[in-house]
Amino acid sequence: MASQNRNPEIRKDAVNNRWVIFSPARSRRPFDFKSKANPNPNNQSECPFCIGHEHDCAPEIFRVPPDPSSASWQIRVIQNLYPALSRDVAPPNSSAPNSTGDVAISGFGYHDVVIESPVHSVHLADLDPVGVGEVVLAYKKRIDQLRCHDSIKYIQVFKNHGASAGASMSHSHSQIMALPVVPPSVSARLDSMKQHFDQTGRCSLCDIRSNDLLIDESAHFISIVPFAATFPFEIWIVPVDHSSHFHDIDGAKATDLGGLLKLMLRKISLQLSNPPFNFMIHTSPLKDTSPAQLPYAHWFLQIVPQLTGTGGFEMGTGCQINPVFPEDAAKVLREVCIP
Amino acid sequence: MASQNRNPEIRKDAVNNRWVIFSPARSRRPFDFKSKANPNPNNQSECPFCIGHEHDCAPEIFRVPPDPSSASWQIRVIQNLYPALSRDVAPPNSSAPNSTGDVAISGFGYHDVVIESPVHSVHLADLDPVGVGEVVLAYKKRIDQLRCHDSIKYIQVFKNHGASAGASMSHSHSQIMALPVVPPSVSARLDSMKQHFDQTGRCSLCDIRSNDLLIDESAHFISIVPFAATFPFEIWIVPVDHSSHFHDIDGAKATDLGGLLKLMLRKISLQLSNPPFNFMIHTSPLKDTSPAQLPYAHWFLQIVPQLTGTGGFEMGTGCQINPVFPEDAAKVLREVCIP
Ligand SMILES: Nc1ncnc2c1ncn2[C@@H]1O[C@H](COP(=O)(O)OP(=O)(O)O[C@H]2O[C@H](CO)[C@@H](O)[C@H](O)[C@H]2O)[C@@H](O)[C@H]1O
Ligand SMILES: Nc1ncnc2c1ncn2[C@@H]1O[C@H](COP(=O)(O)OP(=O)(O)O[C@H]2O[C@H](CO)[C@@H](O)[C@H](O)[C@H]2O)[C@@H](O)[C@H]1O
Repeated sequence: MASQNRNPEIRKDAVNNRWVIFSPARSRRPFDFKSKANPNPNNQSECPFCIGHEHDCAPEIFRVPPDPSSASWQIRVIQNLYPALSRDVAPPNSSAPNSTGDVAISGFGYHDVVIESPVHSVHLADLDPVGVGEVVLAYKKRIDQLRCHDSIKYIQVFKNHGASAGASMSHSHSQIMALPVVPPSVSARLDSMKQHFDQTGRCSLCDIRSNDLLIDESAHFISIVPFAATFPFEIWIVPVDHSSHFHDIDGAKATDLGGLLKLMLRKISLQLSNPPFNFMIHTSPLKDTSPAQLPYAHWFLQIVPQLTGTGGFEMGTGCQINPVFPEDAAKVLREVCIP
Repeated sequence: MASQNRNPEIRKDAVNNRWVIFSPARSRRPFDFKSKANPNPNNQSECPFCIGHEHDCAPEIFRVPPDPSSASWQIRVIQNLYPALSRDVAPPNSSAPNSTGDVAISGFGYHDVVIESPVHSVHLADLDPVGVGEVVLAYKKRIDQLRCHDSIKYIQVFKNHGASAGASMSHSHSQIMALPVVPPSVSARLDSMKQHFDQTGRCSLCDIRSNDLLIDESAHFISIVPFAATFPFEIWIVPVDHSSHFHDIDGAKATDLGGLLKLMLRKISLQLSNPPFNFMIHTSPLKDTSPAQLPYAHWFLQIVPQLTGTGGFEMGTGCQINPVFPEDAAKVLREVCIP
């Protein structure tokens, strides 16, 4: 379609009040899983994310360790070759609705890929805690660069693992998208946490620890199944100390988080037979808040194994149906024995 | 798990303010697609929805034509054998949060199945407009029964077609769920439409007709691709005359809707190679509003072909990425030639 050469656009209609990103470039991206049924293809020779294939990728932003002249690297942060948002269009300056209440703004933003390992067959959970911590610190470093842009309002870090979790590339990676708007789920979450704070004087995530729902803990983080988990075996990793923004994490905490994240990924892999999964870092919007902490906003990392599909009920209502009670999922995950 | 015998429960946490239905019974339901890759299995001999297998189903609520002693029928509305909500528990009477802000209420509600044809291989789009209209009227009749219950706040009609759209049964059917709470997407939609009305004095769906986005029209309905379609080739069928509640439809309009719905399903089937799809009827909450119309609320039917997956970005932000501009999708669908 001719529109594949059009710039991306972000639209909101007057009925749902929900932003949607229109991005014709996305339809050109490759899909390297042989079939959805085979989540571990061995097509290393063609993989642009493998070491030695750097020239097949969109430009590098930085690498770890940070020597661009060296042939070896541990992590690469690169531009996404098929970005949903474009860094080359003008940032939106207003979003006034037209006469029918519809809003369209330019699809300005950043869309990067974090290659988590130089080796095709190495997954995130195969790295040691320090190695996973280095990936966490790469997210932080890139966010620190992106949040300098005045037009960036929110930054979403996420990972897709396995074709049924949406991944189109099998080489271990995650993604970072910097957005010119605060997305709807984020506003709703912040509003809800603020409401709880206004009513109780407490942050809802500072109080979340519960024996029933606890899976594990480390020096600075706990892992739990949330009280109203939207998916079976959903896990939240929550910093024990109050913190609004993920990017305030330091090196020691990143390694500690790396250890707990690795443990959770190994537990779901063992218990649930290496399921496809997503993880998302839920942080706070930028600007209006910095540099101060928001007393009601507390960042966390959500892990969702993809075990059940969804259907028309969930699309219609925004309400999920979960067959597994959180207490039962937490007990199972607490008791998984890691060899 | 022992909890499979527990009653369903509806929970909301203090972070996301989103209802989730916990329903252990759901994990027992059968899956009759041989594999997700084979969306048209021929396992008629075991299908409980086929004529002659009525005894393998949960109890019948009514049939069309309405003679329960006759061996023949055209449509059956039955209870779901693995209901997400239970009609046998006490309706919730309050939803006060506990000290951590979490809410849990009893999983009261109704969950029914509409079997759209006695014959395994006949799909909804194979019926004639009057036949599709009869299915629409069966939805209305069942809603009219359910909305008498004081505790029912919203009723969601939806259809899953094909395994990737969530269907576990291949025999043509849809579902009706009656809920004791107004779900989050519905409140958000109503708030957004009310805001548009307050600002402009107009209903956002009365004004939605646009030449660019129009696909087809009938005497009482138009079909369009919405301005901010969340999915490629998403279609809305909207009544031309203002109407808040789907259940106010009459026989003539139901047949007219049947014709346009059939046409849209045939168009996506031809143009997009018989894709899996969902449809959802988006109507208004019950009680507080009836009998009067709400000037800002206008019901519609949304059809979503399942062409792309989603990933961590969408789960994290609630914001979809759509590679196809609505104007382009509308042009393609307008021009599909139905033989
Ligand atoms: N040579 C190269 N150089 C640089 N980048 C390259 C590249 N080759 C491919 N890429 C990019 O690498 C990324 C790989 O990402 P994932 O496998 O996590 O899923 P993807 O973003 O395709 O879509 C999933 O995640 C998104 C966001 O959640 C959903 O919209 C979608 O439906 C789901 O399938 C793609 O975004 C692709 O554009
Ligand atoms: N003998 C019998 N008598 C009566 N009823 C019977 C029956 N045998 C099966 N059923 C019911 O028939 C229904 C068939 O429904 P669908 O195929 O549309 O999808 P399902 O509800 O399973 O799940 C999809 O839709 C739901 C709701 O959107 C999602 O939660 C889920 O992930 C997705 O797979 C099931 O709900 C099942 O319980």
